[in-house]
Amino acid sequence: MHFVAALDQVPGMKCILGLQENIVTGMADGYYRIARKPACTLLHCGPGLANGMANLHNARRARSGIINIVGDQATFHRPFDAPLTADTDSMARTVSQWVQTSTRSDELGRDASMAVRAAKTYPGQIATLIVPADISWEEAAVVSEPIAPAPPPATDFNVIEVAANILRNNNNVLILLAGTGLSTQAQLLAWQIANATGAAVLADYVIPSIARGRGRMQLERVPYSNTSAIKTLERYEHIILVNAKAPVGFFGYPGMPSRQYSARAQVHVLTRADQDPILALQELAKILDAPAIDIPDPGPRPLPSKGSPTAEKLAQTVAALMPEHAIISDESISYGRDFYRFTHAAPPHDWLHLAGGAIGDGMPVATGAAIGAGKQRRVINIQADGSAMYSLQSLWTQAREKLPVTTIILNNSKYNILIGEYENVGAAPGATAMSMLDIGNPNLSWVKLANGMGVEAAKATTLEQCADLMQNSFKNTGPFLIELMI
Amino acid sequence: MHFVAALDQVPGMKCILGLQENIVTGMADGYYRIARKPACTLLHCGPGLANGMANLHNARRARSGIINIVGDQATFHRPFDAPLTADTDSMARTVSQWVQTSTRSDELGRDASMAVRAAKTYPGQIATLIVPADISWEEAAVVSEPIAPAPPPATDFNVIEVAANILRNNNNVLILLAGTGLSTQAQLLAWQIANATGAAVLADYVIPSIARGRGRMQLERVPYSNTSAIKTLERYEHIILVNAKAPVGFFGYPGMPSRQYSARAQVHVLTRADQDPILALQELAKILDAPAIDIPDPGPRPLPSKGSPTAEKLAQTVAALMPEHAIISDESISYGRDFYRFTHAAPPHDWLHLAGGAIGDGMPVATGAAIGAGKQRRVINIQADGSAMYSLQSLWTQAREKLPVTTIILNNSKYNILIGEYENVGAAPGATAMSMLDIGNPNLSWVKLANGMGVEAAKATTLEQCADLMQNSFKNTGPFLIELMI
Repeated sequence: MHFVAALDQVPGMKCILGLQENIVTGMADGYYRIARKPACTLLHCGPGLANGMANLHNARRARSGIINIVGDQATFHRPFDAPLTADTDSMARTVSQWVQTSTRSDELGRDASMAVRAAKTYPGQIATLIVPADISWEEAAVVSEPIAPAPPPATDFNVIEVAANILRNNNNVLILLAGTGLSTQAQLLAWQIANATGAAVLADYVIPSIARGRGRMQLERVPYSNTSAIKTLERYEHIILVNAKAPVGFFGYPGMPSRQYSARAQVHVLTRADQDPILALQELAKILDAPAIDIPDPGPRPLPSKGSPTAEKLAQTVAALMPEHAIISDESISYGRDFYRFTHAAPPHDWLHLAGGAIGDGMPVATGAAIGAGKQRRVINIQADGSAMYSLQSLWTQAREKLPVTTIILNNSKYNILIGEYENVGAAPGATAMSMLDIGNPNLSWVKLANGMGVEAAKATTLEQCADLMQNSFKNTGPFLIELMI
Repeated sequence: MHFVAALDQVPGMKCILGLQENIVTGMADGYYRIARKPACTLLHCGPGLANGMANLHNARRARSGIINIVGDQATFHRPFDAPLTADTDSMARTVSQWVQTSTRSDELGRDASMAVRAAKTYPGQIATLIVPADISWEEAAVVSEPIAPAPPPATDFNVIEVAANILRNNNNVLILLAGTGLSTQAQLLAWQIANATGAAVLADYVIPSIARGRGRMQLERVPYSNTSAIKTLERYEHIILVNAKAPVGFFGYPGMPSRQYSARAQVHVLTRADQDPILALQELAKILDAPAIDIPDPGPRPLPSKGSPTAEKLAQTVAALMPEHAIISDESISYGRDFYRFTHAAPPHDWLHLAGGAIGDGMPVATGAAIGAGKQRRVINIQADGSAMYSLQSLWTQAREKLPVTTIILNNSKYNILIGEYENVGAAPGATAMSMLDIGNPNLSWVKLANGMGVEAAKATTLEQCADLMQNSFKNTGPFLIELMI
């Protein structure tokens, strides 16, 4: 309560209300992915933190920087085990790189600076500061100077030279990009290197954001399907990792390997996730004498599609209509695995993905991304319906803050990805099992849900309707929701 | 996936789908409170468990029995740290009395029996069984015989005799009931003892459920407000605890004690929360020669109220109209602290409260309670709007399962309890702080939200309208939502 009251005494904090903690933590993640500076969440006690943990898990996997302030029982009150008392510290550790429980008011300022430093440590970390009520309300707190985070460790020159030798002397080399290795600048360097050496370049499947569209590489991701991923990767004898992990399956499957790359492949770490890839890629290009070269033109921009929605035609329509520097928040799950192929020739844009696998990040990430871009960029949230029900409260914050978010709900009324996973594990679903994947009884009305939270909305059954609604929403400043029946 | 697929191979499981895990865990809690037998939840990996942890926290505080089955990465896949890999075990421990990660298929049956035993251990426990995917899909699993839980430990005869002596020889004795000490039978015995000895009887503030209405004691709870609680309890020199804890504040406050009872009071534990109070109370009544006696008539049933809603008039209206053996799921938070006084003369009913303080349990508990009563009892969910937004997805399950739940949303468009807490901690909220407690910009339309999930709904601004809508909903079999503007 004192933290909230202090918001009127200390200027400089912009406050955004979310109606459930997973909205708040997801917004902070989206904010970081666009603004590249940490937001601060305020969560209430252990159970409030628990409500926000799934999107903190996603943010940790996305390597976003977030400072969580978690209020907790007064130190003198904790031994009495009042109802809200919980093991907040243990909860926080499961989703944070840095956790501290403040124990003295006169050290609270320093603790806060340490939390900010941890959150800003490259490329970003989850820092959770637990503040017992009395530590917050006592008067002794001292403001601390900011503490600069350590710079990311540089890549050793020998490592870069080895990578150069591999690229010079081998045909089947894959450069695998992830994390900050997917920025426009990193892609330009990767293209330069690939062009000079003939190496292949792919993006990892698990990526929080990627610069895409005209002027960026026509990258594909390692496929989600284990079988396809193994097939895609089997030819590579050397994999150079740029902020990526060596690819493994999203899940383990009976009789399938966990690793998706060839058993004979050599794995070379050019840069770890906590290293800056730009200097290493620049150095590598220099050693290879790779000339600066433009990324090839992706051809003409697609036209909007017509008729009944398909994944391919929806992607073309989005590519045809998205404003320049749009942000795509993609939680399309099973429907969107092929979107990339049809959107290379769109204007430059950033595409955000679910990086931790915990469904329900698409809408809050879209909300936070719009704030992170200062409401200056249109966010298009391509959103599966089952996942949307995890964090639909995001729409209210979009209405309250008048955010430029266009949500396209992909209404198929089922947990379609799980039907695919049944096949992957060789389980045969019967009537009961199938009913557990059916969210169409009763049908959800996304138009009514959005209206109930103050967001205008309309239903579309054809891509012409969807395109009209998209174009209208892009002209306005606030949010809009399109319920697309697929 | 194999667990879900097996639902069609093994008969006897009734499956209920919730659209977010906190709905599922809250439903299991409500189910237990009415059916007094554990439900089983199926949650997906660590982050799925995390989504359901707040209501598991509440269920643990309510001492409900629940078996959580949490799917997790295949054992061979865990070392590869795929995106959904999390410290599921640490998460589970924060909200469970019993946790196990199965490591062998041939022991999975026994592990499941152990989990059921733990959940059934009196008066109920949270048991979490983490099942890696390969342990689930391997064929070697053996069905295990049920393992009976240990019976609750009996109260020592000397303890009962001490309590009898205190009751005989002192004037200022309080019998404090909580947990299973609030059943109809326990109340009859407590009344018998109070009548014979002049002792006072109160219910604890923190209680999961209480038998109320005609034929039950006209119990009040220890007040929520620390000041009022201290004033209520200061006269008692002896407190006999029947499944209750010695009262402490919900939070610690500056300059206030944590304990709400007098420093001179002697605290006597007749029965702990994990002991059966009936035998001890019977024995105590016997030693005291306390005659069996009817609980006094609470007077005439109130009439429905009219005009603008107030807490008092809403309580009278609910008391006037509720069907016999109704279940009240009360997450009215600040609005409902005085409901008891006006509902003593209602027909017999059960009243369920938020026992762990993590808001968002009212709607899922109502949903689970309706299932626990086999749809044979009307559930009235008196629900604050801010908390309702935590778990509104419950409405969809109510529609799908055609549950007899009447939800009364108390729409005041703010987090009113927090305005009270500002005063308690001596913080003065300014404009920013107040805007963080305002959920009326934009206004939520609960009628639209309910309709969007297939639940019929209507708005009421007077108690006549509210009464009409209640009576209509009681005549039908399915759910209904009343948005009451307060």
